[in-house]
Amino acid sequence: MAGNTFGHLLCLTSFGESHGPAVGGVLDGFPSGLPIDMEALMTAMERRRPGHGEFQTARNEADLPEFVSGIFQGKTTGAPLAFLIRNNDQRPADYKKMEEFYRPSHAGFAWDAKFGFHDHRGGGRSSARETAVRVAAGALALQLLGKFGISITAYTGQIGNVVSHLSPGDVNPVIVMDSPLRCPDPLAEAEMKILLTGLKAEDDSTGGVVGCVIRGVPAGIGEPVFDRLQADLAKAMMSINAAKGFEYGDGFAAASKKGSEHNDPYEEQEGRLRPASNHAGGILGGISTGEDIFFNVAFKPVSSISKPQLTAGKSGQVQHLSIEGRHDVCIVPRAVPVVEAMAALVIADHMLISGKIPRNIL
Amino acid sequence: MAGNTFGHLLCLTSFGESHGPAVGGVLDGFPSGLPIDMEALMTAMERRRPGHGEFQTARNEADLPEFVSGIFQGKTTGAPLAFLIRNNDQRPADYKKMEEFYRPSHAGFAWDAKFGFHDHRGGGRSSARETAVRVAAGALALQLLGKFGISITAYTGQIGNVVSHLSPGDVNPVIVMDSPLRCPDPLAEAEMKILLTGLKAEDDSTGGVVGCVIRGVPAGIGEPVFDRLQADLAKAMMSINAAKGFEYGDGFAAASKKGSEHNDPYEEQEGRLRPASNHAGGILGGISTGEDIFFNVAFKPVSSISKPQLTAGKSGQVQHLSIEGRHDVCIVPRAVPVVEAMAALVIADHMLISGKIPRNIL
Amino acid sequence: MAGNTFGHLLCLTSFGESHGPAVGGVLDGFPSGLPIDMEALMTAMERRRPGHGEFQTARNEADLPEFVSGIFQGKTTGAPLAFLIRNNDQRPADYKKMEEFYRPSHAGFAWDAKFGFHDHRGGGRSSARETAVRVAAGALALQLLGKFGISITAYTGQIGNVVSHLSPGDVNPVIVMDSPLRCPDPLAEAEMKILLTGLKAEDDSTGGVVGCVIRGVPAGIGEPVFDRLQADLAKAMMSINAAKGFEYGDGFAAASKKGSEHNDPYEEQEGRLRPASNHAGGILGGISTGEDIFFNVAFKPVSSISKPQLTAGKSGQVQHLSIEGRHDVCIVPRAVPVVEAMAALVIADHMLISGKIPRNIL
Amino acid sequence: MAGNTFGHLLCLTSFGESHGPAVGGVLDGFPSGLPIDMEALMTAMERRRPGHGEFQTARNEADLPEFVSGIFQGKTTGAPLAFLIRNNDQRPADYKKMEEFYRPSHAGFAWDAKFGFHDHRGGGRSSARETAVRVAAGALALQLLGKFGISITAYTGQIGNVVSHLSPGDVNPVIVMDSPLRCPDPLAEAEMKILLTGLKAEDDSTGGVVGCVIRGVPAGIGEPVFDRLQADLAKAMMSINAAKGFEYGDGFAAASKKGSEHNDPYEEQEGRLRPASNHAGGILGGISTGEDIFFNVAFKPVSSISKPQLTAGKSGQVQHLSIEGRHDVCIVPRAVPVVEAMAALVIADHMLISGKIPRNIL
Repeated sequence: MAGNTFGHLLCLTSFGESHGPAVGGVLDGFPSGLPIDMEALMTAMERRRPGHGEFQTARNEADLPEFVSGIFQGKTTGAPLAFLIRNNDQRPADYKKMEEFYRPSHAGFAWDAKFGFHDHRGGGRSSARETAVRVAAGALALQLLGKFGISITAYTGQIGNVVSHLSPGDVNPVIVMDSPLRCPDPLAEAEMKILLTGLKAEDDSTGGVVGCVIRGVPAGIGEPVFDRLQADLAKAMMSINAAKGFEYGDGFAAASKKGSEHNDPYEEQEGRLRPASNHAGGILGGISTGEDIFFNVAFKPVSSISKPQLTAGKSGQVQHLSIEGRHDVCIVPRAVPVVEAMAALVIADHMLISGKIPRNIL
Repeated sequence: MAGNTFGHLLCLTSFGESHGPAVGGVLDGFPSGLPIDMEALMTAMERRRPGHGEFQTARNEADLPEFVSGIFQGKTTGAPLAFLIRNNDQRPADYKKMEEFYRPSHAGFAWDAKFGFHDHRGGGRSSARETAVRVAAGALALQLLGKFGISITAYTGQIGNVVSHLSPGDVNPVIVMDSPLRCPDPLAEAEMKILLTGLKAEDDSTGGVVGCVIRGVPAGIGEPVFDRLQADLAKAMMSINAAKGFEYGDGFAAASKKGSEHNDPYEEQEGRLRPASNHAGGILGGISTGEDIFFNVAFKPVSSISKPQLTAGKSGQVQHLSIEGRHDVCIVPRAVPVVEAMAALVIADHMLISGKIPRNIL
Repeated sequence: MAGNTFGHLLCLTSFGESHGPAVGGVLDGFPSGLPIDMEALMTAMERRRPGHGEFQTARNEADLPEFVSGIFQGKTTGAPLAFLIRNNDQRPADYKKMEEFYRPSHAGFAWDAKFGFHDHRGGGRSSARETAVRVAAGALALQLLGKFGISITAYTGQIGNVVSHLSPGDVNPVIVMDSPLRCPDPLAEAEMKILLTGLKAEDDSTGGVVGCVIRGVPAGIGEPVFDRLQADLAKAMMSINAAKGFEYGDGFAAASKKGSEHNDPYEEQEGRLRPASNHAGGILGGISTGEDIFFNVAFKPVSSISKPQLTAGKSGQVQHLSIEGRHDVCIVPRAVPVVEAMAALVIADHMLISGKIPRNIL
Repeated sequence: MAGNTFGHLLCLTSFGESHGPAVGGVLDGFPSGLPIDMEALMTAMERRRPGHGEFQTARNEADLPEFVSGIFQGKTTGAPLAFLIRNNDQRPADYKKMEEFYRPSHAGFAWDAKFGFHDHRGGGRSSARETAVRVAAGALALQLLGKFGISITAYTGQIGNVVSHLSPGDVNPVIVMDSPLRCPDPLAEAEMKILLTGLKAEDDSTGGVVGCVIRGVPAGIGEPVFDRLQADLAKAMMSINAAKGFEYGDGFAAASKKGSEHNDPYEEQEGRLRPASNHAGGILGGISTGEDIFFNVAFKPVSSISKPQLTAGKSGQVQHLSIEGRHDVCIVPRAVPVVEAMAALVIADHMLISGKIPRNIL
């Protein structure tokens, strides 16, 4: 119930601060008997990791989760899966100026108001570093879902004003995986690169949108009226650093449509009734329909920029602030595996609640 | 933990089906000692109620919540506040055709997949009738918040492609309350009426957007990393029938902004540091900043339309379906008090968690 | 999460006060498709009901739960099961003196300290009247468990110093059901009656012990390390009014045993390994073993007695207080169905969590 | 909600297995700003640690919790407090025989039934090793409570049939701390030693009772009707390995008392009404009265004994089993700090829920 635990039956508890010794997580409620593919888990971690794209921060961290519980002889035991990810590359000197300033649009100001305290060294608990925990836990959930025919592909759908117009159903996970910007649309990606190069030169940043498509979810998961599948997905996504919006199916575009345009009529396919179109985004009344589930998550521009900003310091005097240190031009490519991970946790949780995944994998 | 309970310390449990004898709710964790203004509660109920707008369904229900627990001598006792809202105006005959068809984009199909069962009489638990419960509980939360200087105003921000361009800070609750469409912008409202009149003539429907602004929340509420204030608001909003998207602060528009445009620098006002602008929407790092909190919720077009739709019946044969019965052209004006109510539940819950509202009001 | 909701996946939310219009409950997470036997439910209600034994209070209430949600055409729908039990027989006059006194060992004193308020008319929320809700919800859970071969029998094991020495395995539910004192041992029951007659003449009361045996639970339910089966049973039992102790298996007697006496060795029976004895009480390491689960719950003597007590009134002056009104000499026979009900809720919840009962009964 | 997290607002998530690399915990919801006394924490850990009493197992583990989150510059930050306790002294060879046998009355049999799997190396997650996590987390809660004038003293009240007859109010924490058996009564302790020496010679074990007294809790904490203070205490205690029973106040002895004997009349003391006696054990109606809270927890005899037992192996054949390895004669002295720790977690949680401890300590 405390704020660092997420989920109903499958619960992730997250801990750790960006400049402490480690971040980590405890994933409880995971079925016993699943063989864990540590290489696949490392690939997922690698995708979130900063430092290997030209528009991303140069921190260099191996991000190897050390599992201390829940796996025996390569399989899950049913005990909580606990892991640590050490923080190896801390440079507190970069943050010295932060004792005098609240960085504009950064969590420090609000954190101070709440806890009477904020670790100025780089965000502490509000740092994007915390999302490494989600990716590690999500990688476990993804492996579990894979065993039940469910795949999840998140991707960069927009950076700044450059938008990929591929429909979710056409997104190819292989292309996304190979793309440095995690964009399924090579033409859009080329433009995104030009945009990012320009912003980097200006010491500025931009936002974007992560899309996500979930394939293979059977009809019947979701717990109305409050734990509707989209409500739990929305909470999961809006709990990610820098997320500003969530929409599923036709989303905000549905607002200006007519019912006769937006409705998905039924048709029979191979003796089974199913919606002929999928404006709904795979969920009706809070419950999965068996069609692809897809949604978008908007991210704000990175707030830490080197470009000087006029802002008042803690003493009240307005001054130019230029935030040094290592910062992404756009968080979106790195947010892609985080969105994927959180989606996996929600879907696995609801598959367990519905009894569609057993507690014990044989 | 089951799907019909919402909240952490202040919990609403909702029950009832649209064509059963009653819907109702239990609001637990509410402080003792608050005098309840039943007239104000009835006004809130009245605003949600169908049947008094020309674009809304003609059901006629008094919607008087009968309180059976938690109030003694006009004050809350600290015991759960339980109430019933009787369903007086049921016309099951309208729904006869629904035994043969799943209505396109209606919950029945998914509900059947989950429960092996769906009450064809009009949505059962998936009906918008259920939102009356939220409005009644939210009205109690609004009264509690009012005592602590917090006010919440939801409003119609968009219907179809007609958009109100008032900024959230300029929304006047008195104008909203007086507006039949709950729109704070009279010019936009006039256009909206024309649009709705046309759609009604076509037997069609449309969607829209509800905006909401929360004033007076102190800095420091919200429980990162998962129970961030915006995450709980997102879950609350996306649990409302027909909601398709949620955004706060600059929302999806933030995606195409630069950091230097989107950041809110600090300034000193009356000896206190505060953000000079509010692109953030009143929340940073998941915690309130003390500024106005504002967000939007997108709603899809009403799926029940009289305009004939080509769709397959349960037997598989494609046929024209024309949904008779009473249906709104646009749900948005009636969703306004529901959004307000759910926001009130989230804010009151977090005020209690943070200790900013005591369990016992003196 | 608020204090009036119990359970993990199967959640009972309880509401209502003894002297308000009704008590009631919402049982959420109950599988869809179970035919409900209303007569069996009424029989369970009848057993808890006061007024039909010579040592029990003379309140006369029909205690008919009115279901307002969750049942359609005689079967559960998967929606929350909500019910009201009207309070028909209120006699506030009996409680007039209570405005001047806190009744010794009654909840009023503590309730006042918490809520700044206590309904002097007879316990309000702390009244045993609230247990009617548990019995109604438990009756539904019992029907669900019955479908899966699980039966629960609670019984009077001790009244005052009169103890039934039947072992839990020998308790016959038919004898218990027929016994006015719910005692499986007719010789003990005869003595109990003599004891109670004497106490009634003295205007005094006594306590006792309710035993309970649960048969047919498969091995493998319970969620260590905190949601051990016995931990959830203990919480359930200790949440009942007047309960002072819980023990399972050999319980407190195990404290003075040797390991060699207390251990249950294994033996093979029909090709299956099982414990040859059952000192454990059917649970090891927090998980069911497949053997009978049995436990005891101690209840204190009824605190409301007509016999004069020397106690200080709210004004501080010590005076004789004689509590008029209708009171049981011993609560134990009426606590029997409450213990049974709470046990049913815990076992059904864990059967659902373990996936041993599906969410949808075909 | 998953089984390895305990608490409402203050939540302990426990992880780790006895023969994995570490056990550990995450304590979330802890107020910010409390200076942590690591020496006091180590003293608490030391008390639980095996290997320094002649009747306890000879495992030698430093049990130093390594904190990886939640403390900055010696104070709590409001972020989750996460810690690891490495397992240094594993001797899997001792457990080789366990691949062929389920140890009688040990968790392995039930664990296998649930997870299809049990770590035969020594209990895995069901090992008493897991309680080290509770003690570390409890030590933090004890420091928090100390700041608010609340102290908790658990003690050995019974070993085998040797009972200490000190009343809870007379228990002196200094004597308990100095006593090797954690017994407040030196005469009883002397007898307990003789008993344990005899049992050790027989290669047998025994059970016992841990008592606990909580001083300084203000009136008004506890959340009826289900999260009554005693219900949460009972769950906490019954979640401890080997616990078989819980009672508070007069407990099971209340069963045979009369109302007139058991009731606590009120008296005025220094202008304040309070109970003149405390049969209630400091809780009425689920809410603290301001008096001492006291309870007992029964523990079964240690099930791992070297004395040969006749039991069937997994193959079904009955054989003598003599469990080698390091085992306590009686777990009770080591359970004392575990009971204290769990009590501290419950009380701190309820103090936070009631708003009597703020989220931010100045």
